Amino acid sequence: MAEKQKIVYITRRERFNAAHKLYNKNWTEAENEAFFGKCSNKYYHGHNFELFVTIKGIADPETGMVMDLKKLKTIIKDSVTEQLDHKNLNEDVPFLQNMMPSIENIVVAVWDIISPQIENGKLHCVKLIETENNFVEYYGE
Amino acid sequence: MAEKQKIVYITRRERFNAAHKLYNKNWTEAENEAFFGKCSNKYYHGHNFELFVTIKGIADPETGMVMDLKKLKTIIKDSVTEQLDHKNLNEDVPFLQNMMPSIENIVVAVWDIISPQIENGKLHCVKLIETENNFVEYYGE
Amino acid sequence: MAEKQKIVYITRRERFNAAHKLYNKNWTEAENEAFFGKCSNKYYHGHNFELFVTIKGIADPETGMVMDLKKLKTIIKDSVTEQLDHKNLNEDVPFLQNMMPSIENIVVAVWDIISPQIENGKLHCVKLIETENNFVEYYGE
Amino acid sequence: MAEKQKIVYITRRERFNAAHKLYNKNWTEAENEAFFGKCSNKYYHGHNFELFVTIKGIADPETGMVMDLKKLKTIIKDSVTEQLDHKNLNEDVPFLQNMMPSIENIVVAVWDIISPQIENGKLHCVKLIETENNFVEYYGE
Amino acid sequence: MAEKQKIVYITRRERFNAAHKLYNKNWTEAENEAFFGKCSNKYYHGHNFELFVTIKGIADPETGMVMDLKKLKTIIKDSVTEQLDHKNLNEDVPFLQNMMPSIENIVVAVWDIISPQIENGKLHCVKLIETENNFVEYYGE
Amino acid sequence: MAEKQKIVYITRRERFNAAHKLYNKNWTEAENEAFFGKCSNKYYHGHNFELFVTIKGIADPETGMVMDLKKLKTIIKDSVTEQLDHKNLNEDVPFLQNMMPSIENIVVAVWDIISPQIENGKLHCVKLIETENNFVEYYGE
Repeated sequence: MAEKQKIVYITRRERFNAAHKLYNKNWTEAENEAFFGKCSNKYYHGHNFELFVTIKGIADPETGMVMDLKKLKTIIKDSVTEQLDHKNLNEDVPFLQNMMPSIENIVVAVWDIISPQIENGKLHCVKLIETENNFVEYYGE
Repeated sequence: MAEKQKIVYITRRERFNAAHKLYNKNWTEAENEAFFGKCSNKYYHGHNFELFVTIKGIADPETGMVMDLKKLKTIIKDSVTEQLDHKNLNEDVPFLQNMMPSIENIVVAVWDIISPQIENGKLHCVKLIETENNFVEYYGE
Repeated sequence: MAEKQKIVYITRRERFNAAHKLYNKNWTEAENEAFFGKCSNKYYHGHNFELFVTIKGIADPETGMVMDLKKLKTIIKDSVTEQLDHKNLNEDVPFLQNMMPSIENIVVAVWDIISPQIENGKLHCVKLIETENNFVEYYGE
Repeated sequence: MAEKQKIVYITRRERFNAAHKLYNKNWTEAENEAFFGKCSNKYYHGHNFELFVTIKGIADPETGMVMDLKKLKTIIKDSVTEQLDHKNLNEDVPFLQNMMPSIENIVVAVWDIISPQIENGKLHCVKLIETENNFVEYYGE
Repeated sequence: MAEKQKIVYITRRERFNAAHKLYNKNWTEAENEAFFGKCSNKYYHGHNFELFVTIKGIADPETGMVMDLKKLKTIIKDSVTEQLDHKNLNEDVPFLQNMMPSIENIVVAVWDIISPQIENGKLHCVKLIETENNFVEYYGE
Repeated sequence: MAEKQKIVYITRRERFNAAHKLYNKNWTEAENEAFFGKCSNKYYHGHNFELFVTIKGIADPETGMVMDLKKLKTIIKDSVTEQLDHKNLNEDVPFLQNMMPSIENIVVAVWDIISPQIENGKLHCVKLIETENNFVEYYGE
């Protein structure tokens, strides 16, 4: 009888250093300042962002791997972190145009970019750490 | 057609440095020593505790936020960590009276304090790190 | 009326420093090199592995604990990390024989060793960090 | 005979999240791009900076302290990190005007601000971490 | 001609979790509260302390070591951290009696205990981290 | 009058994951086991090593830099970490032949490789972290 297939979750971390501000263009400067406080600073602020991408799948008996982490690294770098690293998230990034570049919105945008590229296994979670005190997770729900 | 609403999990970390001991007042000193070992030391020991509070919700399109992390920070500090920081968890904290101040019991107590204060989104997880080797999580189950 | 019993997740970290290589004995050296790259280096490489074991259960009202973390530590050390620490995962470890010593396979093997030893509560997750950029989790699914 | 006075070094960490770019206004855009690469990105990038300030002195026998760390924290926050947090280091900060806002130049500028404010003990080191891979230190030499 | 002997600095970290308060017995409670603030809390608070001990010496050509780190670990544990772990630094520790248990005073006391036990090489530094924001170093000056 | 030139220390971290064992070929197996314990395991063990290289120099007023960290990164990777990463330090590394691959010996060997390549500024320190508990530093003394 075949052994039950076991589901393992593998995670890769990549990093990017970027500037952003939280600023709603439909609001006045005073409204932005009142709601977002120092996060709305005109000339931006920035962070060392850490992005964690988790894939759920079955390890291949030949390789012991759900998917090659070198390939996952390449997908994340080519389609996400090289687009974001040393960039301004309000000004420089095509896939973040017309949205608030909050970490909540970024993880959803990253999910939509990475999910179709995963062949072995499925994308399970995108996590983004903004500071040692603040992070978000998105599970495609 | 309206786009599907996406559920994001946001987390805020706050810290507190406190003393405690694991000591059951209904047991003899020898029974406490036998079961809890050095954790029952009469004059207490202490830790740098790290508390992570996770909220589950939909990001507001106007703000890009599930809830304002400044507001979450204020809730955690005012109702939890300022009650615990530089305190003795066996002696000084009203909401921990009549219970063992183990990390298992603290996360449940913190859940009950924070949960009713969350207006946008719902409390999803309370995590408490006691040392680099030990931590607990509670999901309200 | 009895209060609802609350499910808490407790986690213990243990560490081990080991050598391994990713190398399929049924493949040629060139095939191994082509697929696994530098991870297949003949004389091995190594890592500081961090193992996190999570138990799910109800805190005992007498002790405030799901299970004694000292006992969990002993289970993990005796049956897992002392078998792996300062060892070669390809050559020295009986419970990893006849498999690729990838982190995906190790977490499943560790689950099978620890799970039957948990009396209060149930094993919930085995997580293994290989580098600051790569880790896996297994939930017994 | 009086006991020898013992010199202790105390350090306080404060953090700030800021945007900057490395861009020499006397150079062409192409020269900046050639030398500074992605660090010269027009719309800036950013970091979570960690600042460590070390004071050298003798512990007061009455208090056990070289200087009150609450006071050191206040000096660092009031005169440095609140000027830098959620700011653009090229545009928003008076004490960084007319210089390249590199971490090398920032630690020297921070030294000059903090040094005259230390009454008990002397400023020994200003350290600034830009990423997990890059940091600088300045000892007033 | 003999090659110049090269001086290497080796460091071992050990940890202890302890309670303490900053409280001068010669002062009134109000004076303590005014000066030490929440650090003087009657029933103590606590920390996860990290102790780093650095030895300076020449690596033995036979062993590649300045001194056996297993031996350094044993010295630190037996004479220092097992005396401090899960203890109250004001009440339980003979070598901290009659002094303020501040981190400034503790590193000097630890130096005096460890220094005479080092046979190969010399004690160079004792560093003690109290929180992620506060630490001290002592070089025997 | 010219302003005093200010000496700044810049540090770059690079990482490598490698296998090694501490084993003196002139000793019997029993002697190795007696002295080095589990570190002498025949089939090796391994670590995630972190290498920190510190350069001391004057920041160039045109660039704000002591030396270009991208260039320092290239020097470290090309001449050191790519020679060590995913390698066996006893078997695979020409510059570690005929010596015990202890961290004490590695930092001296790395110093000799990097030092002649530094043009602006001087090599100040090579630090190597083997585990979260053990590290060494070498200052060329």
